[in-house]
Amino acid sequence: MQIAMIGLGRMGANMVRRLLRAGHECHVYDVSPDAVAALVAEGARGAGSLEELVGGLDAPRSVWLMLPAAITGDTVTALLGALDAGDAIVDGGNSSYRDDIDRAEQAAAGGIDYVDCGTSGGVWGLDRGYCLMIGGPDRAVSRLRPVFSSLAPGVATAPRTPGRSGDPSPAEQGWLHCGPPGAGHFVKMVHNGIEYALMAAYAEGLNVIRNAGAGVRPPEADAETAPLRDPKYYPYDGIDLAEVAEVWRRGSVVGSWLLDLTAEALQADPGLDQFAGRVSDSGEGRWTSIAAIEEGVSAPLLTAALYSRFASRGSELFADKVESAQRLEFGGHVEKTGGPA
Amino acid sequence: MQIAMIGLGRMGANMVRRLLRAGHECHVYDVSPDAVAALVAEGARGAGSLEELVGGLDAPRSVWLMLPAAITGDTVTALLGALDAGDAIVDGGNSSYRDDIDRAEQAAAGGIDYVDCGTSGGVWGLDRGYCLMIGGPDRAVSRLRPVFSSLAPGVATAPRTPGRSGDPSPAEQGWLHCGPPGAGHFVKMVHNGIEYALMAAYAEGLNVIRNAGAGVRPPEADAETAPLRDPKYYPYDGIDLAEVAEVWRRGSVVGSWLLDLTAEALQADPGLDQFAGRVSDSGEGRWTSIAAIEEGVSAPLLTAALYSRFASRGSELFADKVESAQRLEFGGHVEKTGGPA
Amino acid sequence: MQIAMIGLGRMGANMVRRLLRAGHECHVYDVSPDAVAALVAEGARGAGSLEELVGGLDAPRSVWLMLPAAITGDTVTALLGALDAGDAIVDGGNSSYRDDIDRAEQAAAGGIDYVDCGTSGGVWGLDRGYCLMIGGPDRAVSRLRPVFSSLAPGVATAPRTPGRSGDPSPAEQGWLHCGPPGAGHFVKMVHNGIEYALMAAYAEGLNVIRNAGAGVRPPEADAETAPLRDPKYYPYDGIDLAEVAEVWRRGSVVGSWLLDLTAEALQADPGLDQFAGRVSDSGEGRWTSIAAIEEGVSAPLLTAALYSRFASRGSELFADKVESAQRLEFGGHVEKTGGPA
Amino acid sequence: MQIAMIGLGRMGANMVRRLLRAGHECHVYDVSPDAVAALVAEGARGAGSLEELVGGLDAPRSVWLMLPAAITGDTVTALLGALDAGDAIVDGGNSSYRDDIDRAEQAAAGGIDYVDCGTSGGVWGLDRGYCLMIGGPDRAVSRLRPVFSSLAPGVATAPRTPGRSGDPSPAEQGWLHCGPPGAGHFVKMVHNGIEYALMAAYAEGLNVIRNAGAGVRPPEADAETAPLRDPKYYPYDGIDLAEVAEVWRRGSVVGSWLLDLTAEALQADPGLDQFAGRVSDSGEGRWTSIAAIEEGVSAPLLTAALYSRFASRGSELFADKVESAQRLEFGGHVEKTGGPA
Repeated sequence: MQIAMIGLGRMGANMVRRLLRAGHECHVYDVSPDAVAALVAEGARGAGSLEELVGGLDAPRSVWLMLPAAITGDTVTALLGALDAGDAIVDGGNSSYRDDIDRAEQAAAGGIDYVDCGTSGGVWGLDRGYCLMIGGPDRAVSRLRPVFSSLAPGVATAPRTPGRSGDPSPAEQGWLHCGPPGAGHFVKMVHNGIEYALMAAYAEGLNVIRNAGAGVRPPEADAETAPLRDPKYYPYDGIDLAEVAEVWRRGSVVGSWLLDLTAEALQADPGLDQFAGRVSDSGEGRWTSIAAIEEGVSAPLLTAALYSRFASRGSELFADKVESAQRLEFGGHVEKTGGPA
Repeated sequence: MQIAMIGLGRMGANMVRRLLRAGHECHVYDVSPDAVAALVAEGARGAGSLEELVGGLDAPRSVWLMLPAAITGDTVTALLGALDAGDAIVDGGNSSYRDDIDRAEQAAAGGIDYVDCGTSGGVWGLDRGYCLMIGGPDRAVSRLRPVFSSLAPGVATAPRTPGRSGDPSPAEQGWLHCGPPGAGHFVKMVHNGIEYALMAAYAEGLNVIRNAGAGVRPPEADAETAPLRDPKYYPYDGIDLAEVAEVWRRGSVVGSWLLDLTAEALQADPGLDQFAGRVSDSGEGRWTSIAAIEEGVSAPLLTAALYSRFASRGSELFADKVESAQRLEFGGHVEKTGGPA
Repeated sequence: MQIAMIGLGRMGANMVRRLLRAGHECHVYDVSPDAVAALVAEGARGAGSLEELVGGLDAPRSVWLMLPAAITGDTVTALLGALDAGDAIVDGGNSSYRDDIDRAEQAAAGGIDYVDCGTSGGVWGLDRGYCLMIGGPDRAVSRLRPVFSSLAPGVATAPRTPGRSGDPSPAEQGWLHCGPPGAGHFVKMVHNGIEYALMAAYAEGLNVIRNAGAGVRPPEADAETAPLRDPKYYPYDGIDLAEVAEVWRRGSVVGSWLLDLTAEALQADPGLDQFAGRVSDSGEGRWTSIAAIEEGVSAPLLTAALYSRFASRGSELFADKVESAQRLEFGGHVEKTGGPA
Repeated sequence: MQIAMIGLGRMGANMVRRLLRAGHECHVYDVSPDAVAALVAEGARGAGSLEELVGGLDAPRSVWLMLPAAITGDTVTALLGALDAGDAIVDGGNSSYRDDIDRAEQAAAGGIDYVDCGTSGGVWGLDRGYCLMIGGPDRAVSRLRPVFSSLAPGVATAPRTPGRSGDPSPAEQGWLHCGPPGAGHFVKMVHNGIEYALMAAYAEGLNVIRNAGAGVRPPEADAETAPLRDPKYYPYDGIDLAEVAEVWRRGSVVGSWLLDLTAEALQADPGLDQFAGRVSDSGEGRWTSIAAIEEGVSAPLLTAALYSRFASRGSELFADKVESAQRLEFGGHVEKTGGPA
């Protein structure tokens, strides 16, 4: 079917490629003319402006946005002015589901369908397919079904869940209409919240193994630090983490795609020396914890994973200084210096 | 090769079956004669006592234990009396790696090799293979290689990690000699610590989605409870969790074997009404957190997953009462009654 | 000075009493005529409606609100219609500082000063004084200084901080102009976030002592539960918690007013049997964690204290069921039944 | 009464001074002759060796140790050889209660009473008195009552808990016989676990206030970082933390001795620039979390406070690198550089 894509970065460009491969008619636009040209060379129809893009589409139009969250809002506003009743906007980026709710209300006032589509798959999506979590009105979701089907990985990419039979449902193909506007980004948001926690779980565990030689290091004997009670139980200096990640990939309970990637990273750079350990977060992890809090639902791991990222960027420094100051005040403890413990 | 198995429960019996299929000569013993008889019917050689078992083996003997942690110690003591220098004991159960260190010391005094083997795979291992994490002396580990190879899933069960070439290493087949005595159970212990956290990550995330209709419930208006600031942002009552788990199985970043199982469980019983929510823990999760603490390494998610299990069994009740008492003291707040929030 | 109070519940009524004692002219209004009558009997001037209240005040008027957060907004709206430029509204309740920012903007449009005043002290404030954290324009804060001084505890209620000299600052008297609109409730919000964590810290610690007899209980010997490694190190059944809380009150590092109250509660009811352990939360704890998240600042304890309250009310039940379901799936583990661990 | 003190560091020397002031006969020994001489000049009787110390005491002897945990064990062993049945050893340092249990067993074999005494008070104890948490046999605890009374702060140092009447109990004076050997250090251990959490609670809260100007900083607009949804709600740059800590000292729910010290530290050095934020831990916090885990009791705040100290010393670095590596693998996200967030 005919679909327009605005935003031809890493994600948007590959999604267009996957749609072209499936035979869809893709109209594309980006602030970078080079990005447009590259896809035109691969079979897309390019536009030099948003207006030109919209003008080249047949009604009812479908315009998909893959833009940084920070500029999606302005683009939606511009689009709402250019589209007609019956048209549809799909926001496939990392917007907050709250923005979807607000924008869908605005769009509905003009008869335009607003669809939010949480998209997972990263740089691998072109070949692996994209997992799509969708919110919005039935009319547009039904019409866009061929696009969702082409972007999604397809049922063959995982064994069928026991208990499921008959024609595979959309979820089994890798896309799901989750509910009303925002529901798609809500589910994607939680997906990312979980993702943060899965990543941190492996990271913490590998770190515990990496420090299993604590008993071999010379003990400190001063009034402040208690000696390790049983150093003989921490003799494991130098367990090979790349091999550990590799062995867990087959037959274990912790096997996952993230583990596959972790094994690959450790295989390539066993000490991960190319990294400084400053872990970014993109918003969804924050919003997931905020949702848990506002719902009154406990989510200790999801929030711990988020806080651990903040801390990796130094957010705790002042809090730590407060504690050092308190220790000096009540116990006369002077801060120790030295490298990482 | 020839191998003896003591302990024919769920795990032990299936491991014998997998070894028989691979052509190994399996001698088996269990306190339950029925368990022995069942495997004899499948081709194993049965023994009526530990002594008979040992007596039927050629030197150097290899005796594998798959027993509850609580009785492994006594069995090892008995075995050490029955075996000769050059023989090997393999503890494949869920022992603490600290016991391995102690027992290996004892065994070494008599020239006996003590091998610890953390075994992951659960009820699925018979067909899927077992992931084996091994500690102990090279001599025994080398000799037992054919057994490890047969129990492990084999290289074909996962795509090869990019960057690896040549003959597949043991880790790529699903077994790894991690280090000296205890190293296998240490790595398996951390594996389980990670497993707890992965499980809790999905559980928390699904719970956040399940409560996404918080804005639709009637608000409470009293002095104590602040109203939800923006109820309009929590309209998602009844998102289908089985479908959500299913859609995440293809193309998403959170795909894993645990997610496959979660999808299956939700497919079979969407409300999970058959469960009371009392989550057991088997020791490894505790030991992982203790190791982190003794190493001086932060592991907030691993410990949060553990504490969440304790709390599911009521461990926080008294602490909660203390807080209710404090609130009454300083603010005159009387405890509210009612069902779960 | 002349001051009007709207909302004569537990907090509002006692604040009026404290102001009357200090010689201020207090005009009072409440939806309950009885509440008004009670304070009129103690020297306040009553009003039968908000309009009557406002009509009885000299310009520039000062109207203080002590209302549930859920109805403060409507009252402010009504008041903004009744007041004149130069008048001041003080919100002394538990409003979100975000509402302050929005309302102050509205008020400023009409030349009215909006002051937010976070108030700590609970049922003890009448005698102990109230700790006041204030935000808003200088003009109104300066004018209300006599009221703040009378409500605050006064410098004599704590030893002077070493390093401070000269005339005691307002902070040393127990009230502080923290910054622009909302800054008072922001600081009060964080105060409550800290309060939750302090309470939970004592609660958790007392619970660890309460369970120090774990080694005396009969151990479970099955394949799932690992035995306590060293039961001999958990022999302390029945340590007297009321005595422990009491001994910590003198000379220890953990002395605090909350500890005093905890000791009192345990003295009166050692098992805290009158409580069910369902701990309410009033909003500030949630907003504190949300602020931490939006600021990108790690606050693991503040959020853990909040989540622990959610969990005390059953919020984790479904998540726990997910984990029990996962355990059944991969390991064939059937949920154990029985009372709290 | 007559009492010997071994270990004349910061704590031991001040305890001797407090005992001398109360009229006790103090015999003292330390590896540093200068430390001995200093106290002899203040009225103590010095000894040049452990044997000389013991030789100068009347039976039944009482020998108090205030030594680093790392060397207490060897000193106890030496003392057990020098003392007679009926004598008593008091370990007032920061030993693990497990060592107490082991050592008390040894001591009891020779008829010697082993008393463990957790001591809180730090550098302030000389004037403020020490809070004493005691374990061990009744015989020795009874005999040492005068010493405990003199070291403890006394009942007058805090208002009496409502509900208590009659003669003040020892707990009301500041010392408590908690139970059998190790019970004193167990209670002190948990005391310190709580202390860590109280400290972190204030530290986190102050850090949230310190970052309340997040909305005033220029936002980042890229694909990775979501913009702060409502920057207008984070306008509070530069709230005066020393004033905030001060105002909380009077009338608020979070008043405590630790808050007093925090206010003092912020008054002296508002930015805490003299500290690097590397927070030490002395053992008790670790043991408290381990006790919670082994008891099967959830203690999320106590452990979070501990982990936060580990993280302040860099323990999470490798885990953070793992997460950065995973992000690069699945999303092509390159680590950002720059200063603390």
